[in-house]
Amino acid sequence: MLKGNAIIAQSGGPSAVINNSTCGVIQTWFEKVDFGTIYAGISGIKGILEEDIIDLAAQDKKDIAALRHTPGAGIFSCRYKVSAEDQQKMVQIFKKLNIRYFFYNGGNDSMDTCYKTWLAAKEQDWDMCVIGVPKTIDNDLPFTDHTPGFGSAAKFIAASIRETGIDLESVSTKNKVCITEIMGRNAGWLTASAALSKRYENEAPHLIYLPEVPFSKEKFIADVKAVYEKYGYCYVAASEGLHYEDGTFISDSGTKDAFGHAQLSGCGEVLKKWVEDEIGVKTRCNTPGTMQRSAMHYASKTDADEAYLCGKTAVEYALAGKNGVMVTIERVSDAPYQVKMGEAPLDKVANIEKKVPLEWINAEHNYVTEDFLRYCRPLVEGVVDVPEKDGLPDYVRLDFTKGRV
Amino acid sequence: MLKGNAIIAQSGGPSAVINNSTCGVIQTWFEKVDFGTIYAGISGIKGILEEDIIDLAAQDKKDIAALRHTPGAGIFSCRYKVSAEDQQKMVQIFKKLNIRYFFYNGGNDSMDTCYKTWLAAKEQDWDMCVIGVPKTIDNDLPFTDHTPGFGSAAKFIAASIRETGIDLESVSTKNKVCITEIMGRNAGWLTASAALSKRYENEAPHLIYLPEVPFSKEKFIADVKAVYEKYGYCYVAASEGLHYEDGTFISDSGTKDAFGHAQLSGCGEVLKKWVEDEIGVKTRCNTPGTMQRSAMHYASKTDADEAYLCGKTAVEYALAGKNGVMVTIERVSDAPYQVKMGEAPLDKVANIEKKVPLEWINAEHNYVTEDFLRYCRPLVEGVVDVPEKDGLPDYVRLDFTKGRV
Repeated sequence: MLKGNAIIAQSGGPSAVINNSTCGVIQTWFEKVDFGTIYAGISGIKGILEEDIIDLAAQDKKDIAALRHTPGAGIFSCRYKVSAEDQQKMVQIFKKLNIRYFFYNGGNDSMDTCYKTWLAAKEQDWDMCVIGVPKTIDNDLPFTDHTPGFGSAAKFIAASIRETGIDLESVSTKNKVCITEIMGRNAGWLTASAALSKRYENEAPHLIYLPEVPFSKEKFIADVKAVYEKYGYCYVAASEGLHYEDGTFISDSGTKDAFGHAQLSGCGEVLKKWVEDEIGVKTRCNTPGTMQRSAMHYASKTDADEAYLCGKTAVEYALAGKNGVMVTIERVSDAPYQVKMGEAPLDKVANIEKKVPLEWINAEHNYVTEDFLRYCRPLVEGVVDVPEKDGLPDYVRLDFTKGRV
Repeated sequence: MLKGNAIIAQSGGPSAVINNSTCGVIQTWFEKVDFGTIYAGISGIKGILEEDIIDLAAQDKKDIAALRHTPGAGIFSCRYKVSAEDQQKMVQIFKKLNIRYFFYNGGNDSMDTCYKTWLAAKEQDWDMCVIGVPKTIDNDLPFTDHTPGFGSAAKFIAASIRETGIDLESVSTKNKVCITEIMGRNAGWLTASAALSKRYENEAPHLIYLPEVPFSKEKFIADVKAVYEKYGYCYVAASEGLHYEDGTFISDSGTKDAFGHAQLSGCGEVLKKWVEDEIGVKTRCNTPGTMQRSAMHYASKTDADEAYLCGKTAVEYALAGKNGVMVTIERVSDAPYQVKMGEAPLDKVANIEKKVPLEWINAEHNYVTEDFLRYCRPLVEGVVDVPEKDGLPDYVRLDFTKGRV
């Protein structure tokens, strides 16, 4: 077995449970390893490159444990495309700190970074182990049944749509169409999860539009009109990445201002304007934005536990001699819901986006099928228990001045 | 004591806990009264006028109890301005159903409706009791320390800003300004509650803009620039009702499209564009919209309990011979937090808006003072326990086909 230290870093947009994975890596490392410490690169790969690194042994164990109920990126993350030069530099830093294990907690791009770092280490004859720990609310990583972070975002979206749907239905007013714009530019998993909220035939959401299929304005107007006439109100869940056949985002297709600048708005605002102009019904648009990826106050326990398990498994894989892989989740059965941990080679994962299968989208392209619901339902089960202080969630903030390298 | 039936109706935009008040009225009525039933007007005053009325005795008691953890308007509400003719017609319907007690659960306009209905009943020599039960997330009703609905909305907003603030701070990316647009067109209470989320000096929110004071674009740009330079990121909580000295909403002041139409966006999108154009920093805008007033999945227990108590008290007041009043909440002490029930004459409440006192806004007009925090903190304490089913909140839906009149 390789003897030396480890480093963990987080990458990309946080999810509510990314810190569960990171906590799983850190706690498992300290529990099972006696030959080295584990460092954190503050702000992902960027922190490693700038040697903004701390020794996690210096953190309070209670604070590390509190990462399990804390959203955001607990050791900060970055969006940063590594260059070939960066990769070489990173290996130099690994050598300097005798780092033999690199755990990277992120999405698509991060797995690419992992893989390239691994190649760079090989080039420099630095024997090391690189393991990817999956994370993304977009659920678009391949080879894994689903991705930690998705279940919690789906739970928040589905609950919010149930709540705002009841709100919309229950007020007799002119505002009887509501559009909620949901994250996921290329993959519609999170938008699709809105369907979990519907219990009765006339309940929200009535229409779901995903980026997997081309959008038609005419069809959309006809759909909203039909629902509105049937039920007296209409609730639309729309992906931020809706686009036409030619790939143009619908949010790029709105009116321009007098100076020719594209309008400000996102896709939800464009849809709202269309409903108001063409159907003449006042419309609300909810854009929860980053709330979707950080709502730890209502995160899925299933998701949080799996996120932790992925981190734990990453260390176990490393200690078992596995290398160059991303931890994956394999579904054993839907009911009872059971999963086991698996793995996929980093070079196969990197930069592939897994989209909602077309057979899980209805023929009209405005809703999802029962197969999607069967897949999605177990992922939102349970609620993470978050301690409260002064009536608000008591989230931890690690002290980055401790254990500086 | 007047002998006869009662009717309850809900009015205006729902809050997460409006059904607690309604449940308090219904349960207390059935518990204490043996001389009549209690009806519900479905969709507020509109339902009464259209005789869309049900006898609540026909509902399952478990369903009535489940209103305590269900958002939206459980017996539906409306936004409807009553005419003089409507008031007379309403009294006719009260006579027909021998209704001697009218409980109206709503905000400013509803108290006006209550009052006018009371006058109309007097004119027609129909002896009856009219009691207002306060409700609004805007917290803008006078004579009451605060309004049921506000605490829960404040809790959701403050938790979400803590979460999205941590998210913003913890990702090293170009998107380092975030604006959250918060409900409350004329009163800034809910926007001000964002301040509850800040624990550390550099934490979100950094800037809070309320509609109580005129907005200056130049000052706003300078404020954001200063915070961004100091902390490396900037989080803004902005009321949807921000306006200039002359009363023009800033959301009306953006660019117009080529046809001269006002742009689509709300105030948050206008601020976002200004930051991007004038400071050159990519900005996110979260617009939670109706999520703010329906987030029962994370409602304040203090608020829900007080909402129930207001409903219960309304019936007790009626049975004690009080009339023509709105139930109010009087604060006895901040620490320990204690309140008692009070009352205010309907004609004094009607159509007055209570705004955030200017002395609770800082001199720079970009934050609130410690006095506001002391006032607001106790209102978000505790979490309502919501039963889950299939991983989502299990909300009730009353069966309006039961007990139709």
